[in-house]
Amino acid sequence: MYIRNEDTICAPATVPGTGAISVIRVSGPDALTIADKVITCRRGDIASAKGYTIKFGTVKSHSGDTVDEVLVSVFRAPHSYTGENSVEISCHASSYIVSVLMDLLYEAGARAAEPGEFTQRAYLNGKMDLAQAEAVADVIASQNAAAHRIAFKQMKGGFSSELKTMRSELLELVSLMELELDFSEEEVEFADRSQLDYLLDQIITHVCRLIDSFRLGNAIKNGVPVAIAGATNTGKSTLLNALLGEDRAIVSDVHGTTRDTIEETLNIDGVLFRFIDTAGLRETDEVVEQIGIQRTFKKISEASIVLGMIDLTRDFESTCETIREIASAVDFETQKLMILLNKTDICEVNNNVSTINFIVSELENKGVSHDTAPIIPISAKTGSGINELRTHLASSQRDLLADSDTTLVTNQRHIQALADARTSLLRVRDGLTSGLPTDLAAQDIREAIYHIGSIVGEISTDEVLGNIFANFCIGK
Amino acid sequence: MYIRNEDTICAPATVPGTGAISVIRVSGPDALTIADKVITCRRGDIASAKGYTIKFGTVKSHSGDTVDEVLVSVFRAPHSYTGENSVEISCHASSYIVSVLMDLLYEAGARAAEPGEFTQRAYLNGKMDLAQAEAVADVIASQNAAAHRIAFKQMKGGFSSELKTMRSELLELVSLMELELDFSEEEVEFADRSQLDYLLDQIITHVCRLIDSFRLGNAIKNGVPVAIAGATNTGKSTLLNALLGEDRAIVSDVHGTTRDTIEETLNIDGVLFRFIDTAGLRETDEVVEQIGIQRTFKKISEASIVLGMIDLTRDFESTCETIREIASAVDFETQKLMILLNKTDICEVNNNVSTINFIVSELENKGVSHDTAPIIPISAKTGSGINELRTHLASSQRDLLADSDTTLVTNQRHIQALADARTSLLRVRDGLTSGLPTDLAAQDIREAIYHIGSIVGEISTDEVLGNIFANFCIGK
Repeated sequence: MYIRNEDTICAPATVPGTGAISVIRVSGPDALTIADKVITCRRGDIASAKGYTIKFGTVKSHSGDTVDEVLVSVFRAPHSYTGENSVEISCHASSYIVSVLMDLLYEAGARAAEPGEFTQRAYLNGKMDLAQAEAVADVIASQNAAAHRIAFKQMKGGFSSELKTMRSELLELVSLMELELDFSEEEVEFADRSQLDYLLDQIITHVCRLIDSFRLGNAIKNGVPVAIAGATNTGKSTLLNALLGEDRAIVSDVHGTTRDTIEETLNIDGVLFRFIDTAGLRETDEVVEQIGIQRTFKKISEASIVLGMIDLTRDFESTCETIREIASAVDFETQKLMILLNKTDICEVNNNVSTINFIVSELENKGVSHDTAPIIPISAKTGSGINELRTHLASSQRDLLADSDTTLVTNQRHIQALADARTSLLRVRDGLTSGLPTDLAAQDIREAIYHIGSIVGEISTDEVLGNIFANFCIGK
Repeated sequence: MYIRNEDTICAPATVPGTGAISVIRVSGPDALTIADKVITCRRGDIASAKGYTIKFGTVKSHSGDTVDEVLVSVFRAPHSYTGENSVEISCHASSYIVSVLMDLLYEAGARAAEPGEFTQRAYLNGKMDLAQAEAVADVIASQNAAAHRIAFKQMKGGFSSELKTMRSELLELVSLMELELDFSEEEVEFADRSQLDYLLDQIITHVCRLIDSFRLGNAIKNGVPVAIAGATNTGKSTLLNALLGEDRAIVSDVHGTTRDTIEETLNIDGVLFRFIDTAGLRETDEVVEQIGIQRTFKKISEASIVLGMIDLTRDFESTCETIREIASAVDFETQKLMILLNKTDICEVNNNVSTINFIVSELENKGVSHDTAPIIPISAKTGSGINELRTHLASSQRDLLADSDTTLVTNQRHIQALADARTSLLRVRDGLTSGLPTDLAAQDIREAIYHIGSIVGEISTDEVLGNIFANFCIGK
């Protein structure tokens, strides 16, 4: 399992571009001697430097030109990020200098690191488990307090230790069963079935809670999905621009990281929202249009919040139709609806009392009080009412910011593994209930352990055996 | 002159974005104690750490959440970049973590650094002079070997020491004159005029050489200017694309740094070229068009290399006209011309012998051998002949890559100061020739010293006096 890497890898660790300094990481058994080949230090070499010290040195090209003066941070195995000998070379942030330095490192015997390879080595060298390693990427990508808290907790092993507990409970279960199996010839039933059932129920509940946490965890990590729904040309894009306004810089930051989507994300009071523009809800006559509307309904169904936009300048009848369509598309059990009365700059809300009354009655028909589905007059064009909308959005998600110690799962792979584990565990429960042989149940539990173990990357049936002998060593 | 900074500054030192690590710099008298307020280290505090060591620590938010685990590089005055107490905090490269860390540093008493303020402090604390400080920015911006070599040499004080020599020669001159002045009542002429004249001529020659080096220095720093000239629709833009081809990434890098120009730059064999597309040379009938043509001629005159593009599919007469226009626009004393016969994909060169003969004779009329003005058949569309063109371009600028120890001036401010110094020095020479009083000449030399001194940022008439007393201390 714990593979010792024979080769030494190197890669820039900072974002390329024109800054003050760039850092190049080198890790592996020859990291220090390779650094010595490339960097000349005034007092003593890097290979004989203590860990956690910094050396000042000069990098020269083959022609003898000084390429740069650098600072070298020295880390000695196992006290480094990767657990290997490592150096971090801090140079001037010039793309030219970085490329020359990288070439010199290659020539001196290092090879270019694969993406994530430093963290992979940290995992392989036992510095962190797989779930923690995965969280490193989430920590780096986190854009707000809530997402950062989940990721950082996972990186520090919070989730892993929870899984570890669950795993040792499952190992206890399987040990009890294996024991029964071993002594089955003697027709002795060691395992206390009620104890088994109780333990199993507890674990299943725990797994289900973790799976359910994904909706919240995912909302925090990728943004609370907010669908903007309404008739065509009611100002949905204008609203998006008005919302982005002063935070446009943050938005463009996110764009850089998530180029695969055209959705816009925005931090409001520390919560990340992901705004999804939808096709207009009106023209349902044509077939092609109907496909668009289908997609809109799908997007609405995936959102946590639906912003239903009403254009105050439209006639009452078509407005009512839009309201009916939006209200019927929202699942009020799991979703929040906010009605936006747009274009207050050219049309007074007071002249639209009938519209408001219709909205209130329509919501009441659905059993929804308009307290939980606020009606907010806005002007996307002038920005009036936008702050009120922001406040409503932020306060609707206040629970995301709650400083809870509950583990939230944010990783699709983990959810899949947990779902697989749940399937196995439900099969165990059914088996025990219907009196299936214990060895079949034990096999299912082992499967659940396998799935749970796959999350942290520690899968080994040896451990199952090891656990039996450790707890039940009866000298046989 | 040497101002001690009372406050402590901080700023991210790496490029923002999603990378592995980000580095935040803190510098000033309270850098270590401020870092201690923000970062909790397991063993001992940062303020008592030795210089050139690394501490591992934890950053917590006000709510007690762990924001990040960081590495802190400790530097103690004067052994740091700024010459002050400094720390470099290496954290996970998340924009969220960096912003929280910056906020915590502000609260702990640091303030946001102005652009270049760390280097400014290095200058104010005597770690480098002004010319060296200016070169730091050039080192960071350098995109190729030649530009990097000039900038790095200047950063390490090569240019400064040359100026220092020049300055002490001027100080010697002025000392001789001041001495003469002091004893003028006694009607004694101390200074040897022929020695004065010789020294002055040498210095003027030196200043002129430095000023002349700007053309080359600037070509290396900002790229060798290459004008692409020719009739409209001869494929100039296609050529640009063909040249950029595989190096497009480098080009876009440069674009990021020089947004103010739409010219395209490209590295060929370590030399930076700056390609300037020009308006077509043909339609000279209209007034507006003529302005465009004027601009084209201006751009051609500013280029070091002119690529004259001929469209092989055009009729012989109009081709000859284009050739004549290009040949007359080039100054063969200072510029290089390369003739490109484009569209070889649809028109064979062998069918255009008359065109080639016309080019050769036209060049001969200008006294230019076609060895120095190569004729290169290309197809901008298919890329055929482009490699040959690249080879011609690179070899024409081989001297830029020569590992010369000659100082090249690349900075506009320095050129201005040198030109001002030259003006003063020429006035001194005129004055001495026409027998003006020595005190006027001494005043002009002091001005030249002022201008030279302004380059490295050390201007002080006290020094002039100091020099007199040191060399000529006659007990008066």
